[in-house]
Order: sequence, then structure tokens, then C-alpha cells
Amino acid sequence: MLWSGLFRRLGGYGRVVVQRRGKGRYSAPAVRTPSLQQLARAADRFNLNLDQAELQEFQNVMKGTLESYQRVDQLVQPLPPVKWPRTPGWRPQPKENPHNAWYWRTEITGAPSGKLHGKTVAIKDNVAVAGVPMMNGSRVLEGYIPEYDATIVTRILDAGGIIKGKSVCEDLCMSGSSFTSATGPVLNAHDNARSSAGSSTGSGTLLALKEVDLAIGGDQGGSIRLPAAWSGVVGHKPTHGLVPYTGCVPMDITIDHIGPMARTVADTALMLEVLAGFDGGLDPRQPPNLTVPEYTSQLTGDLSGMRVGLLREGFGLVTSEADVDDMVREAAHKLTSAGATVDEVSVPLHYPDGTHIWNAVAIQGCTQIMVERDGVGVGWKGFYPTSMVDALARGYNSRANDMSVTLKLLTLLGEYLNKNYGNRYYAKGQNLGRALTKAYNEALDTHDVLMMPTVPYKPVKLPDGDASISEMCHQALGLIHNTCPFNVTGHPGLSINAGFSQGLPVGMMIVGRHFDDATVLKVGHAFEKIRDSNS
Amino acid sequence: MLWSGLFRRLGGYGRVVVQRRGKGRYSAPAVRTPSLQQLARAADRFNLNLDQAELQEFQNVMKGTLESYQRVDQLVQPLPPVKWPRTPGWRPQPKENPHNAWYWRTEITGAPSGKLHGKTVAIKDNVAVAGVPMMNGSRVLEGYIPEYDATIVTRILDAGGIIKGKSVCEDLCMSGSSFTSATGPVLNAHDNARSSAGSSTGSGTLLALKEVDLAIGGDQGGSIRLPAAWSGVVGHKPTHGLVPYTGCVPMDITIDHIGPMARTVADTALMLEVLAGFDGGLDPRQPPNLTVPEYTSQLTGDLSGMRVGLLREGFGLVTSEADVDDMVREAAHKLTSAGATVDEVSVPLHYPDGTHIWNAVAIQGCTQIMVERDGVGVGWKGFYPTSMVDALARGYNSRANDMSVTLKLLTLLGEYLNKNYGNRYYAKGQNLGRALTKAYNEALDTHDVLMMPTVPYKPVKLPDGDASISEMCHQALGLIHNTCPFNVTGHPGLSINAGFSQGLPVGMMIVGRHFDDATVLKVGHAFEKIRDSNS
Repeated sequence: MLWSGLFRRLGGYGRVVVQRRGKGRYSAPAVRTPSLQQLARAADRFNLNLDQAELQEFQNVMKGTLESYQRVDQLVQPLPPVKWPRTPGWRPQPKENPHNAWYWRTEITGAPSGKLHGKTVAIKDNVAVAGVPMMNGSRVLEGYIPEYDATIVTRILDAGGIIKGKSVCEDLCMSGSSFTSATGPVLNAHDNARSSAGSSTGSGTLLALKEVDLAIGGDQGGSIRLPAAWSGVVGHKPTHGLVPYTGCVPMDITIDHIGPMARTVADTALMLEVLAGFDGGLDPRQPPNLTVPEYTSQLTGDLSGMRVGLLREGFGLVTSEADVDDMVREAAHKLTSAGATVDEVSVPLHYPDGTHIWNAVAIQGCTQIMVERDGVGVGWKGFYPTSMVDALARGYNSRANDMSVTLKLLTLLGEYLNKNYGNRYYAKGQNLGRALTKAYNEALDTHDVLMMPTVPYKPVKLPDGDASISEMCHQALGLIHNTCPFNVTGHPGLSINAGFSQGLPVGMMIVGRHFDDATVLKVGHAFEKIRDSNS
Repeated sequence: MLWSGLFRRLGGYGRVVVQRRGKGRYSAPAVRTPSLQQLARAADRFNLNLDQAELQEFQNVMKGTLESYQRVDQLVQPLPPVKWPRTPGWRPQPKENPHNAWYWRTEITGAPSGKLHGKTVAIKDNVAVAGVPMMNGSRVLEGYIPEYDATIVTRILDAGGIIKGKSVCEDLCMSGSSFTSATGPVLNAHDNARSSAGSSTGSGTLLALKEVDLAIGGDQGGSIRLPAAWSGVVGHKPTHGLVPYTGCVPMDITIDHIGPMARTVADTALMLEVLAGFDGGLDPRQPPNLTVPEYTSQLTGDLSGMRVGLLREGFGLVTSEADVDDMVREAAHKLTSAGATVDEVSVPLHYPDGTHIWNAVAIQGCTQIMVERDGVGVGWKGFYPTSMVDALARGYNSRANDMSVTLKLLTLLGEYLNKNYGNRYYAKGQNLGRALTKAYNEALDTHDVLMMPTVPYKPVKLPDGDASISEMCHQALGLIHNTCPFNVTGHPGLSINAGFSQGLPVGMMIVGRHFDDATVLKVGHAFEKIRDSNS
């Protein structure tokens, strides 16, 4: 043991003081005693009027307590295990990456058999794959290599999946479009001039390009469902807590989701079977008694007795395009041929209040946790990636100016609110989230699922080089009205392609009851069968 | 509806802009657009280099998003219901309050029958009782009257308990002694010159004085168990999450506990039956499938087959007094007469590392959540008391200088760490908390409970008027070594009086497995029977 000594009684935050007696080896100290000047600044920040003698007394009292930080520095912390060997992989050249959807390429093989045997997988670059660079779309994190695997990475490899690389995501995932990543815009697979939506930008595009069979997406305001819609693939935001978020970069634990994307509902369901389930308390959102049904066995195509509700407030938004609304309405009505009843249901809080409530939670939550507190914040149990905390802290100090406009907007607005209004609006937003949850649950009492367009409009053109801050912010953040309320409430939501209008994909969202992801997948699968048999 | 208008498409954080057309009524705006100067300060804080034109563009983009805050301000949030009528009560005169243990007196009667029928109860003043002043021991919160009942308050009244008032607690509960409350020191019931320990200071004293039958305590580092030990009564820190913390002032959700105190284990068990159980998601720590056993029916006095482990590292601390260690060891061995086996078990991480780990979590956690973010922080679901957020925010702005020395120490040290080291040590502390949990669980694999002195030494003299900052901090914070590790790990812990030495009470702590509070109570009860039959 490097650290030794005799403990003597002194107190001070349950303090134990190390009295070095010369016989222990020297060990470089980790946290220094603050200077009087630093303490004076801290006092000033909190309106404390302390004279020099008082500051000195506080400084003395602290010395003992700071020994705790020395010791915490020395203790070796438990990390999630890394099971499957790999090399760091490589950054692909532009010619291997024409849509710019890969951030990094790898070839990691796991178990020789399993549910995902032989399936190729892209991992969104906000998910840690040990030994492989992760920049989360941002120069702030550039150069970081995690030493831990996200739980879902281990589960994919254990199930025989082959990880082909990290897909590009938006700058710290703070965008719903596809141009804020530090590695440049990702092009829509169906129209190179258009956005493929984000923030799981590359995952949607790589699926549409058939470069992988499966992909991981993350979703805080719609970031799995939006790119699924605009790339014409399937993306499922699982019920909050169903899939462990462990090892993925947090924005705000209450809205963070991670989940499967694929080209078919069957593959999505299969992947969810692998991803879902309790991970031993590393993710505190998960109930310990979580049971994971066999989703794939429920994809029968038969929707007899199922009640489908078209969410009235999800159509006819200020931003809605008529062809999108019409196509989704028509698509939903086709489910009657599988035995479902389809009618309209109203949840007045959905729009615009759902967005207002999400704003109240997401803006201050993400600023305080992701930006101000280096991606982790405080006040939750579970696995905290300290190496990521360090990397983000260094990045914010050295590369903040290279953040995207959306991150700058978030930071400026969040800091203004934090400083001038405290946390009361965040707090009220969380309380209103319960009212919103109740409102959807009432609609889900009379209906098995709710349906609406994923994005109210079709893929838009990527911004020009001379786009204004305002144009970029509006494009990046304007498409989340139908998706973001379900991040606050935690309901499962799947986006599936309803068809193409003017050559562009239109996404339809299916929302279900908490932990009833099975029904959402079942409805999605039945629709897919009808859609594909008609085409 | 006060607010009306036409929505037009603009985007910006899923923004919906209200275009006032003159026909809606005027409604006072809630959150103003930041000035360019405020934005420049925010940019500076995060190392962003933005010129005036850019700041102006960001300001323009924000305007739409800020409409969300107007709307969130107007929406009515759900609050926990207040069921039982009451008046505000009264602040007792010194002559009615000779030990200074009451902050406020009330007389609130609930249901005419129930498990607690006729039992009188003191509520720690960090727990909200609607309509009754709450200052949490601090001038920072002085004048605040909550409009909501804590879940446990409703449960006590529903069970027929009679609430007699709010008991004094330490200044924002940041002390284990009994002299930091703004209402003055609380005197030990067994010796007026000595500390009664805290932070559930008044609750312990009022039980010892037989002014109430039952009391509520809160525990972040030992604050139920320490005053139970030094007042010679029973105090139980339940398993983390068993009793809803909803409506109690948070310090850090990962170490916050609330629980029962009484003069007998039977009353403690009875009260726990009333307090425990899921409260519908208002407290996110609680698993939804929580079952609450009938604790009282298990108090048989028979410990046949029970394996009791004396925790080696809980004895012989630098601060330990030999008479305390001896009395607890002897008390534990008496359990053999009830059929238990008693031997020693070792958990090397318990001391001093348990304290070091608690420090890493508690110091930054409490600073960031309780002080910097007005008692709530961000990143957890559940009930956020917005009125308390406002009251704390105002208090920190106007009364910070009137905080206790321990709170000033916390604030200075926490701010220094936050600013200079980010959250990496908090993060590592949480990870090490898992190692600590595992270490205790291994000991609890071979033993049903672990036992040790609650406080390593007997009640000390209250500080003189001319005590130094250092003397006060050491007295207030030096007694938590055996208790605080179990706040990080969440194991249930009960303190019971082992006997008196030199006329002063000695507390013995019984720690059990997660959610096996029943065994802890059973062992405590068996000891109580033996103790009382011998005396």
C-alpha cells in the first residue's frame, strides 16, 4: 500500500487525518489545500462575508477533510468489465465514407453464436466501446478513448453481433438535424442534398445504405425516431429504463434513452431482446425486477381486438405538411385489415405544451449535467465514467469555441436561466411531466397505442455554408414536437416508414404503454407486413 | 385561459412562438429575454468567444424558446394532496420548551382510528407539513411555509397519529451535534450541559423527555442514529428507498433517508409499517413493486439460528472510548441467550475508507444540490417542491451570512472542489460506493446483521460561546465514522441504547441486508427484551 500512517482524532466531516511519520513512501498528493484567495472567491460567490482570520480557520479545518480526496484518488474503482478483444480500428477515408456516416470503423466479433449471430452493428458515437475513439460529434471530446464498454456493447457481442464501427452523431447530440457534427454533415441516403435528421444521424443513414444490419441510437428529444423517419428505417425508443444507459454519454438522466434501429421491425425486436434488462444497478433508472419478454415471438401480424388511436394533436401542427399527415392517417387506417380498430383520440397537453415542458426540463438539465458538470452531474447512483468526466472537463476548457451553434445556444440560454431563475422552472417542468404522463396514460387506457407522424414534415435541405445562426438553430431544433414529450414521460415510441412522398421518406410513430414495448413492436410489424405486401 | 394567440412556425428548441394579436388579455411575462450583457457574461463563463452580432443572433433565437417558460409559468402543476385540516400552530415560549427541542408546536389529528391511533408524533423540521412553518434549522429558510404535505405526514395522519409539532434540526441538517440550529442549542435530556447529537436533534430529545411517543428523523450521514444513541432512544434508518423521501428537504438523493424514531423497537417497527411503501413515483428511489412486511409480527424475541457479526472495524477507532466498545460488545454477546450466534466479522473498507467515500459523495453532492441548486438539483424524476426552491434561493441571497459554521465550511470546500476539480471525485466516490456495498454484502452473506457502536464515544459537552470555528466543526462533524458509510450503501441501520456509562447513554447499531429491515428490528427487539429484563 502506497499510503500509510497513523490516524489521530480530529473530526471535521468525519475526518481522519493522516499523520505522516516518515516510514510510509512518498505519494504525490491529489487535491491541494485551497489558497486563502481561492476561499475568498468561493465566499464571495455565495455572499459570505468572512475576514482573513476566519478564512484561515476554515482553511485549517479543511486540511483534514481533504485527506479523503487523497485516499479516494488512490483507491481503485470498479469498472464494467471489457470481455471481447479488439484493436482501436480506423478513421475511414472519405471515399470509403461517401455519406460521411461513419465516425470510426472497427471489426469487433463477439460470441460465435447467439441471437445476433452474423449481424453487423453500428454503434452511435455517444456509446462507449472500450479502446475505440469516441468524440460524440464534438471537438470538446475529441481524442477521448474510453476504457469501459457500455453494457449494451457487451450484450451485443455476447449475442454474436459484429460491431463494424461508430456512427456519426450530432455535436454532443444536441441537434435533430445532420450538420452539427464536428466531422461534417451526414447526407440523406435518399437525397444527398437533404438532412438525414439526428442526433443518431449516422445510424439511420448506414441502415438506409444497407452498410449494417442493425444500429444503436440514443434519444433525448427524438434522436432515434427522427433519423429513422428521415432515413426510412425503423427506430425504437424503448420505455425509459428498459435498456441500460450505462456507458452512454448522459444529457439528463430523466430523458436519456438508448435503443435499437434496424431496417425491419423483426430485427428491431430481436435487438431489443438482447439490449433490454437490468444491469445490476449500474443504471439507477432500471427496476431490479425487470422482465424482458420475447418480443419477436409476438410479431404475429394479427391485431385482433387492438385499439389504435390517432393522436389528434400530433396532426395539423403549425409545421405540418399535408402529405405527411395524410400518408400517416391512411397508413394507420390500413391496420384495420389486421383486425385493429382505428379512431381518433385527443391529448390536449401533447402540443404545444408537451414541447414547452420538454424545454423546461431539457435546457437546464442538459446545461447543468452535460456542460457545467462534465456529463455526469450529481445525485444518482450507478456507474460514473471518471475518464469521460476528465475528458469533457478538459474539452470545455480548451475547445468550447469549436462547439456547434446549437450547443452554444444551449449553454448561453441554460446559464442565463440557471443564474437568473435558479432551478424553479426545471422543477416545475418535472412536476408538469407527471401531468403529461397522466394525460397520455388516460388515452392509453382506452387505446393500446397512439399514432402520429414522427416528424411533421419531410426531410429538408442541408444548410448552406453561409447559413445564419438562426437558420441553423431552427433547422436543428424545430422538428421534435411529436417526439420530445415522450422523452419526458418515458413511453416507448417506434418510428416506421409509412411510405414515400415526393421521393422522400415519411415516418409514422407508434407510442405504447410503459414497459409494453411488445405491443408497439407488434403493431409496427403488422403495418410493415401490410405496407410491403402492397408495394 | 389567460394566454391565447396564434402559433407560427419558427423552430428553435422545438419552439412555438406566440404571436399576440391584441385579442388575448395581457399576461405579465415570467422570464425575460436576456440582455446582450448577460449573454456576454454567460459566454465568458464558458470560454465562448462571441462578437456582438453573434450574441444578438443568439438573443433573437432565444426569444421563441423563452415562450416555453411563459407557458410553464402559467400551467398549474400537480402537488401531493393535503388531506387533513390544521391551523399553522405556534412557536412555543422558552418555558414550554426548556430543552429547546421544539421548533414549532401544532396539534394535527388525522383519522379516528388506525395503527398509530392516539400516538403523538414529532416531525423533524426538514419535513414539510402543509401550512406549518418550516425552517430546517436555518435562517436561510426562515419564514417558509410549505403548501404540500410530505408523503409520510399524510401516512401518519391516515394511520391515526397526532402530530404535536416540528422538532428542531441542525442548520440545513449539516451537523451531527446539537448546536448549529438557528433557534439555539438543544440540550441532552440526560445531561443539560451535553450535546444530544443531530441532525434529528429535537426528535431524539423529545422522545427521551417523553414529550411524544414517536418521531420522524432524517439521515444523510447518521442523523437518525446519532441522536437516538446520545438520547438513549431507538432510531432506524430504513433501507434506501423503503420510505418515500417525498416532501423532505434533499441534500443528495443518493444518501437521503427518512425514518422512524421511538422509545421502543415495537413502536419503531409499528411506525415503519405506516411510513414504508411506494408513493406512486413521487420518490424515484423507490422500486414500484415494493412490499412492506408486517414488521411488528416478527418481534418474537427468538433469534434461533441468527448469526450476529461484530464488525471488527467499527471498534477501536482513533476516536473510540473503551467503555463504549466494551458495553456494545457485551450487549451483543447477550443475544446468545435469545439463540443467536455472535462472532467477529471484518470489512476492511469500513473505516476509514467508508468515511472517505462518504466525504467524496456528500461534500460535492450537498453543495451542488442543496446550496448551489436550491435544494433540488436536476436529473431525477419525482416531486420537486418549487416553493421550497424559491424560498431557498431567496434565503441564500439574503441570509447566507447567517448560516452555521458547518454550512459555511461545506459551501467553501464544495465550491473550491467544484471549481478546481470538477465532478471526478464525486463520480469516483459513487463508483467506490459500489465496492463498499459489495464488501458489506459479503459480510452479510455469512451474517444476518452487523453490530458496532453507533457513535464511538459518549455525549460531549456543548461548545462554549467563544469556541473556535475549528472546535465547532470538529464537534459537529467528527462522530459519523460508523454511521455514514451506510448512507452511501443504503443498508438499513438501527441504533438502540446498549446501556449507560458514567450516566450517559451508549448507542449500539444493528445493520442488515437491503430491504431486510425486519431482521434488524427483530434483533433490536430481542436485545431490548434482554436489556430490560436485566435492569
